[in-house]
Amino acid sequence: MPVYPPFTPVIAALPSTVPFVGPEAQQRDSGRKFRARIGANESSFGPSPRVIERMIEAAPDMWMYCDPDNHDLKVAAAAHHGVRPQNIVVGEGIDGLLGLLTRMYASPGEPVVTSLGAYPTFNFHVASVGGRLVSVPYENDRENLDGLLEAVRREKARLVYLSNPDNPMGSWWEAHDVNRLIETLPETTMFILDEAYCELGPASALPAIDVERPNVVRMRTFSKAYGLAGIRCGYAIGEETVIAAFEKIRNHYGVSRMAQIAGEAALEDQDYLAEVVRKVEAGRHRIAAIAAENGLQALPSATNFVAVDCGSDGAFALKLMQGLLARGVFIRKPMAAGLDRCIQRLTAMRKAQRRPSLVRRVRLSGSTSTRQKALV
Amino acid sequence: MPVYPPFTPVIAALPSTVPFVGPEAQQRDSGRKFRARIGANESSFGPSPRVIERMIEAAPDMWMYCDPDNHDLKVAAAAHHGVRPQNIVVGEGIDGLLGLLTRMYASPGEPVVTSLGAYPTFNFHVASVGGRLVSVPYENDRENLDGLLEAVRREKARLVYLSNPDNPMGSWWEAHDVNRLIETLPETTMFILDEAYCELGPASALPAIDVERPNVVRMRTFSKAYGLAGIRCGYAIGEETVIAAFEKIRNHYGVSRMAQIAGEAALEDQDYLAEVVRKVEAGRHRIAAIAAENGLQALPSATNFVAVDCGSDGAFALKLMQGLLARGVFIRKPMAAGLDRCIQRLTAMRKAQRRPSLVRRVRLSGSTSTRQKALV
Repeated sequence: MPVYPPFTPVIAALPSTVPFVGPEAQQRDSGRKFRARIGANESSFGPSPRVIERMIEAAPDMWMYCDPDNHDLKVAAAAHHGVRPQNIVVGEGIDGLLGLLTRMYASPGEPVVTSLGAYPTFNFHVASVGGRLVSVPYENDRENLDGLLEAVRREKARLVYLSNPDNPMGSWWEAHDVNRLIETLPETTMFILDEAYCELGPASALPAIDVERPNVVRMRTFSKAYGLAGIRCGYAIGEETVIAAFEKIRNHYGVSRMAQIAGEAALEDQDYLAEVVRKVEAGRHRIAAIAAENGLQALPSATNFVAVDCGSDGAFALKLMQGLLARGVFIRKPMAAGLDRCIQRLTAMRKAQRRPSLVRRVRLSGSTSTRQKALV
Repeated sequence: MPVYPPFTPVIAALPSTVPFVGPEAQQRDSGRKFRARIGANESSFGPSPRVIERMIEAAPDMWMYCDPDNHDLKVAAAAHHGVRPQNIVVGEGIDGLLGLLTRMYASPGEPVVTSLGAYPTFNFHVASVGGRLVSVPYENDRENLDGLLEAVRREKARLVYLSNPDNPMGSWWEAHDVNRLIETLPETTMFILDEAYCELGPASALPAIDVERPNVVRMRTFSKAYGLAGIRCGYAIGEETVIAAFEKIRNHYGVSRMAQIAGEAALEDQDYLAEVVRKVEAGRHRIAAIAAENGLQALPSATNFVAVDCGSDGAFALKLMQGLLARGVFIRKPMAAGLDRCIQRLTAMRKAQRRPSLVRRVRLSGSTSTRQKALV
């Protein structure tokens, strides 16, 4: 047996894991490409043509390091939200920023509150610092705001996470409900409000941004509505002192020059964003209709995906998902009890529109039971 | 006074800092652009034209998330080095990987050994986990291998860092010297061998890669010889169990789709790399000649920059650097005692070749003292 340098106790206790298996890994395992890639909540409408143009122009400049201050992108994001650049920190997607926030606020053994079945990458980051995850079940397919508050108080939690609109159910809370939670949380608990999908839902779900409040950090991304999942760029909005503290540990050269340029260009083209939002909304209606025609129920969604209630238990929905995967359709599904009756992430898809044969096959597969049998 | 959620003790004790101030920040401060950007050890030869082509082709695909397994790039890097993909982990530059290794091996208060004046971003990451930095002075402008070993033994250090070839001096050790250090280090100490510049130096400075040894991790990057500093992509090579442990904490979606594509394409074009290496070597000779004509001494370099001994003390070299900055030339200099007599990073530059007026002005500035006065 070789001798290994010992890991820290926190690291030694962790498994080696990929929190979200990508479609590429599944393609490698099966030996064939997916015909439809609708399981990662990406926007197949892609980024604005102007963003693509800027990336193409910038390609030869990649010999230069990125600006470690992310200055131009921060200025653009600050102007977009009516805050100051000092209220913005840019990271390698929301994932990167969640990792940093967890390191900033949770020591080994300390409690962190989230919802059971919510974003697994957040849980991964909590585990990576040795935090103790406290999970509150969903209620009526929504994260349970009262339950989260109760858990925070009971556990004296350092951190609490909410995504609004929610992943994986696509549900949402109105701004006044979120604000009531914010106002009743202990001032010593940091509230992470992950708004990855916020551009795609109703404006009424967005609380006004208040950068005076030191215990709220809002997370935004270019991965969803802006169609730039592959470029890895997101940002957090918060009180100045809190935002400055990210400097203590972040990888200053972590967000590529390309990502900073693309993000800035994406913010500039709000007309394109509005067009995508309209198309996604139309897509949600279409998915709901397809589901209904097949005797399945699409849940209301404020995101670019739709959770479809398969009308039975988790085992059934899992089989349905596996059937779709076998047919070359990449989707995912919630795994937590109660949510697991759904398959998820039939996104509003440009690709699907381009490939009507695939859509037709799903739509024309007859009665519910026939269709479900065919898929399973 | 507002109440803040408390940081962890490690974070609370840290300053908010940018370990490397970028040229963009200096440009913003001064209100004008640098005429020459030769302070960040970038390659202004840029990436291979084939890499640029691949990035341009890939731009419209950025709506898709990156492969979190970095599969294709790992396969390519593994083939390049004659190891297995399981021996490779990809990160957001070497910086990102240094941050992870530090978290994996150093708990708060534990000793980590490096050289005084060596790469500050490593020190930043050690501080970010609350590690205790033990710094060994350079000897004869090289990192002191015996001194590092002695410090590791004395302190029972968890981690020891060496860059070879070295930054900021450009010096290097031969492979047999590095191997002697590796063989005498305690098996329980992880040795980080940062080889960011290794393609640019003599092959004799590169120890054979041995992925059976669990206490050595080698770091490589696309930022230097491959000309892709802005894309943020590097990788580490090591023993399989050690490499697997990165999965415990890394941001799986941290390296963009663009970076993975660019890195893979860069590895494919070894002819272009060889051409860059030749040009950089010629540039080193040219810088040495310019320095000599001006009564300054260029130190031997195995990198894409040259440390120029300004023949006096740190205060003098600092003035010289400030003079160059004021003239629109972005350079840096070592700050540690003994090394600080140098200015640094007059790189072999395509830009400089394109702009002979700038070079001529430096070359034709008369005698040493006149020139130095002019610059200061």
